[in-house]
Amino acid sequence: MTCIASVGTALPGEPVDNATLAARLGVSERWIRAFIGTRSRHFSLDINTGDRTCTMAELGARAARQAMDRAGLTAKDVGFLVLATATPDDLMPATVNRVADLLGVNDIPTYQLQSGCAGAVQALDLGTMLIARGHRAGLVLGAESCARHLRFDLDCTNLPNRELVNYVLFGDAAGAAVLTAEPVAGGMAVRTVLNQLIGLGQQPGQQIRWYGAVGKQDDEPAIAEDYKAIERRVPVLAGEILQWLLGETEWTADDVDFLLPPQLSVKMTGRIVEELGLPRAKEISCVGETGNTGNALPFLQLDLMGGLPPGQKAAVIAVESSKWIKGGFALEGV
Amino acid sequence: MTCIASVGTALPGEPVDNATLAARLGVSERWIRAFIGTRSRHFSLDINTGDRTCTMAELGARAARQAMDRAGLTAKDVGFLVLATATPDDLMPATVNRVADLLGVNDIPTYQLQSGCAGAVQALDLGTMLIARGHRAGLVLGAESCARHLRFDLDCTNLPNRELVNYVLFGDAAGAAVLTAEPVAGGMAVRTVLNQLIGLGQQPGQQIRWYGAVGKQDDEPAIAEDYKAIERRVPVLAGEILQWLLGETEWTADDVDFLLPPQLSVKMTGRIVEELGLPRAKEISCVGETGNTGNALPFLQLDLMGGLPPGQKAAVIAVESSKWIKGGFALEGV
Repeated sequence: MTCIASVGTALPGEPVDNATLAARLGVSERWIRAFIGTRSRHFSLDINTGDRTCTMAELGARAARQAMDRAGLTAKDVGFLVLATATPDDLMPATVNRVADLLGVNDIPTYQLQSGCAGAVQALDLGTMLIARGHRAGLVLGAESCARHLRFDLDCTNLPNRELVNYVLFGDAAGAAVLTAEPVAGGMAVRTVLNQLIGLGQQPGQQIRWYGAVGKQDDEPAIAEDYKAIERRVPVLAGEILQWLLGETEWTADDVDFLLPPQLSVKMTGRIVEELGLPRAKEISCVGETGNTGNALPFLQLDLMGGLPPGQKAAVIAVESSKWIKGGFALEGV
Repeated sequence: MTCIASVGTALPGEPVDNATLAARLGVSERWIRAFIGTRSRHFSLDINTGDRTCTMAELGARAARQAMDRAGLTAKDVGFLVLATATPDDLMPATVNRVADLLGVNDIPTYQLQSGCAGAVQALDLGTMLIARGHRAGLVLGAESCARHLRFDLDCTNLPNRELVNYVLFGDAAGAAVLTAEPVAGGMAVRTVLNQLIGLGQQPGQQIRWYGAVGKQDDEPAIAEDYKAIERRVPVLAGEILQWLLGETEWTADDVDFLLPPQLSVKMTGRIVEELGLPRAKEISCVGETGNTGNALPFLQLDLMGGLPPGQKAAVIAVESSKWIKGGFALEGV
């Protein structure tokens, strides 16, 4: 059995509200509200200059330390470290190993998963295998930093719409969870995890490029999304994930106390929750305040949920549209 | 028990020999021979134009298909896919999922590990956990593509030495192994795996940057190595890894039939093998013909070894200098 003993989160700087962001981008607040619905987000950079204010490793370590403190774990209790991200600080060293350094943990196995919105689920998936292998406790993290993808060092008032959307949709954050082999009072038992690639023969819904010594070509977008495919498919996939979780746990739809749905945008999340139609479940969403923070999202939602009373049940659903992954897990208060 | 049932490899294009590379870079063949010792390497690009000749996903799929063919596996037999790399095609989608598409595998868990020279070991480490979880068979891969880090689109005859070294040290390749839960005739049993971060408080020995919409600063090297630290530490760490493998397997130094040492360069590998001083072990090295291919190396070495007769023993050693990871595994013919 794997137990989530505690959760920690970190958001960089002060929230950037729509009025501030709209002024910087030369768009109307109403456009952000109508199109995306997000009310604020945090960036690991200064939107006036583009200067970075913190690294992803620093953000990840802050979230991890909070989770460790809440579970009463010291560095020597951490048996493994898993970090999922789409935006590592560098290609090498893996950011997970810089996080380890900041936490003072060493002599353990570490893993960094290159992943998108399903990454927190993949990290938990790997974490349960490490617990099954015999580790008593360890940390799983998800983190994101947009700093290299948003050009706040420029005049941003003439961006094409396909780029503008990235500035209003995403945010930076890190989240972490302490996993333990033994149930912990106030913790959450991991009942099942779904991590399933379903992208055969399908075009990616999202592509994020990187450049090395060979730089970006002017006409090539660093980030490209197929929003039509995402809008069409994600609600359907979310329904399939929920059904899978219910089947594995032998729960009925009535049993679910908390629903942690995908957090693409306020608008999309609203549609998904409506279509899932869970009768009793309380929705736990953070996207309105944090924006879409990718790999960090499920950790932010778990933190917002504030724990599960014994016997209460939560379903967490994540869809990765990059090459289409169904992700999710089911938790029960212990 | 995890068994390596088969191995597959892929090298892009024809080998580029020192005479050809020296002419392109405006250096002497003797300098390459004396400083690095590598005789040839393969690139996933045309060194005359800088145009890419294949993606890493294509290279990975070629290696995987060879391993599958050798083990008699079809796409529906593949229970999981793990890919380790420092140079993914894109940040999103994860390249592992493009490999899955090319192989025709679907509805399985996939994982992409961001890692350097210890990545093949990490992939095997994760593979053994997936086998322990109940999968009957799956694929682990390691692959590298230098295409975005070597600017063969330019006149390369005036590169500073710190950049030049990357052009002569590295090469592109992919390797794969089919893992099975049941022993397979002609296969190799995985006796133990070491995957241990030891970088606490230490400067990275290698840093590889990436850029998004915000591009490279002119004065910043995309790749930076601390060769002095690497030369000093890797032989010592290789010795510690060997001792750990011998301790875990209860083998003596005399028991080791095959040694697959780190493949930084011909020069460095020679020094490491000498210092390890294994009396009977046959060295299996590929770096002279392939260059340093990072995450692909142990797979290339296993392929070169050509299998292990029943009862014979092999020790594989990998050191990641990025943030210092000790990696290794011990195999026995079944």
